[in-house]
Amino acid sequence: MNSVTILGLIAGIFTSFSLLPQLIKALRTKHTRDLSLSMFSILATGIFLWILYGIILHDIAIIIANAVSFFFTFTILMLILKYKN
Amino acid sequence: MNSVTILGLIAGIFTSFSLLPQLIKALRTKHTRDLSLSMFSILATGIFLWILYGIILHDIAIIIANAVSFFFTFTILMLILKYKN
Repeated sequence: MNSVTILGLIAGIFTSFSLLPQLIKALRTKHTRDLSLSMFSILATGIFLWILYGIILHDIAIIIANAVSFFFTFTILMLILKYKN
Repeated sequence: MNSVTILGLIAGIFTSFSLLPQLIKALRTKHTRDLSLSMFSILATGIFLWILYGIILHDIAIIIANAVSFFFTFTILMLILKYKN
């Protein structure tokens, strides 16, 4: 693994894990009314497109970083839908 | 511009603009107490590293997408610090 890929993976750890406090908060409080469904839908769509972009370019850092981000974002989205009512 | 770059730019529009509702809300309400300073600091750091990654790889989609995201995130960070007290 070269140093550029390591830089991408470190960047990915930062951007992916910035989602974690929100996910933990939603799981803990079971309260997601203040979260925007449209915002997280747009974000999940964008992250999904980045995964495709990474796959086409065979860029492992982009694929891994966005796969982790997608998992967190998708889980937050499901919690928004679950605790909607 | 090839179709892969266009895919990256579309992905970037989605992920960057998912930050916009939060920025608009903070500007409108002048109230950022519920926003996590550490979350947006981590995010800004990660986005900055993605810009470096894009520059090293000469990847224009990664550079543009993350430059826009960095602008939004940095502005939100400044508003958090401004409206802290």
